[in-house]
Amino acid sequence: MSFSKLLLASKEESESNICVGLDLASYKSRKEQTLQISEKKADVILNLIDSLSPYCCSFKVNRQYILDLSLSQIQMITSKAHDCNRPVIIDHKISDIGASNVQMLYHCKQEGFDAFTASPFPGNVKEICDISHSYGLSSIILVLMSNPEAEWMKKSFLDGLPLFQHFAKLTNKYADGAVVGSTGYIGMKELKIIAEEISGKFILSPGLGAQGGEIEKLLIVFKEDVIFNVGRAIIYHKNPVEVIKKYNNSVKSVYYSLGK
Amino acid sequence: MSFSKLLLASKEESESNICVGLDLASYKSRKEQTLQISEKKADVILNLIDSLSPYCCSFKVNRQYILDLSLSQIQMITSKAHDCNRPVIIDHKISDIGASNVQMLYHCKQEGFDAFTASPFPGNVKEICDISHSYGLSSIILVLMSNPEAEWMKKSFLDGLPLFQHFAKLTNKYADGAVVGSTGYIGMKELKIIAEEISGKFILSPGLGAQGGEIEKLLIVFKEDVIFNVGRAIIYHKNPVEVIKKYNNSVKSVYYSLGK
Repeated sequence: MSFSKLLLASKEESESNICVGLDLASYKSRKEQTLQISEKKADVILNLIDSLSPYCCSFKVNRQYILDLSLSQIQMITSKAHDCNRPVIIDHKISDIGASNVQMLYHCKQEGFDAFTASPFPGNVKEICDISHSYGLSSIILVLMSNPEAEWMKKSFLDGLPLFQHFAKLTNKYADGAVVGSTGYIGMKELKIIAEEISGKFILSPGLGAQGGEIEKLLIVFKEDVIFNVGRAIIYHKNPVEVIKKYNNSVKSVYYSLGK
Repeated sequence: MSFSKLLLASKEESESNICVGLDLASYKSRKEQTLQISEKKADVILNLIDSLSPYCCSFKVNRQYILDLSLSQIQMITSKAHDCNRPVIIDHKISDIGASNVQMLYHCKQEGFDAFTASPFPGNVKEICDISHSYGLSSIILVLMSNPEAEWMKKSFLDGLPLFQHFAKLTNKYADGAVVGSTGYIGMKELKIIAEEISGKFILSPGLGAQGGEIEKLLIVFKEDVIFNVGRAIIYHKNPVEVIKKYNNSVKSVYYSLGK
């Protein structure tokens, strides 16, 4: 089943549109937020999936955070999520030429992921989206990233269009979903431009939590098509279940306040 | 020692400016070119380093091709290259936010790499270059990739400059090296623009071999600052040493024909 279909079923079952970012920093790799992960990283992730899956619609794993895990550990993680009826995105942000993309797809499929993120930077969105389907993987294209430095894409133009609009067009034509941040530099103006280009695709929105993103503007524009990624604010908290419940309530209350 | 210094010593010792791309496709991941790698991938790579290091100035490993290798296998590969006095680039093409970049740097350092490639797509070139030095890693920024679809960067503009020129400026300001392809869509015009922006950095040029890149134009513009990456054309050949010797001779003869 495609990621979109798995996601739809999972959203219905969980009544949540929170995607949990299982991005546990390696011990000693940074000063803050490592106390909780002196245990083995894979075990902590498995426990998080167990406790959080009733309250989320999907999981996302950033490739940079699992470079120290083995293939079998990664397979245990994706299997556990699937046992809980939750699809898993590998946030790979692949940015490579065709032959290398094939290797990435091959390995991500072996690892058990359902969807992957890809950068439009190499200019080969059509190619990677076309190939991905033969691997049974869904593609999610970076349209506007959550970090503030990505603002340059609002000021850059291709054929008279801002770059992010161009990437939104490509996403709509070839991909299964788009990454659109919820952080401050992305305003209603940009979101509306993206929404006019993309229809019938899901929007993966990073930035809530540690990055200070906002729920309302995304819900106004993309309605039920949006899923919000929350990582650090949930997984490093002493009570992750309490936190995700709060996020679910926040999203619901904003959603209903918008009269939908 | 920094990658640039290691590279300089290595170029002198080997009298080569070929960087060998150790990108062995996983068995069954594609139809062609897998017969030779039914052996264990890491072992094949170690043997290639052994036989090729006298004839090359560095090695490059693409992340997408080693997703199935363990940390200890990767450490064996970088150690073997270092034993042969050759630095190793991890062609990661990182394209992520700051917190994820830190994880990548942490792991790449643990794996034993000397330098990494990064995409300017997230807009955080300064940030990742600054952090990379605290990890003892050198940064190489994608300015113009080798695949033909990357041509869009010639037609996109930021503040009145073509995007690749903007990326070249960032590279010169913050990074240690640049990726500039040797393939057909990149002409003398673009190379000269890049050369005017970048000085005192090395240029890693992919595209020779399987992708049909050209030596001469890069040598005319970047002279001894350029190193050419050759992967598939060498590593899949039944006699890799013969092939790399031919590439070394080709580069030398073009170099001398240019009167330098």
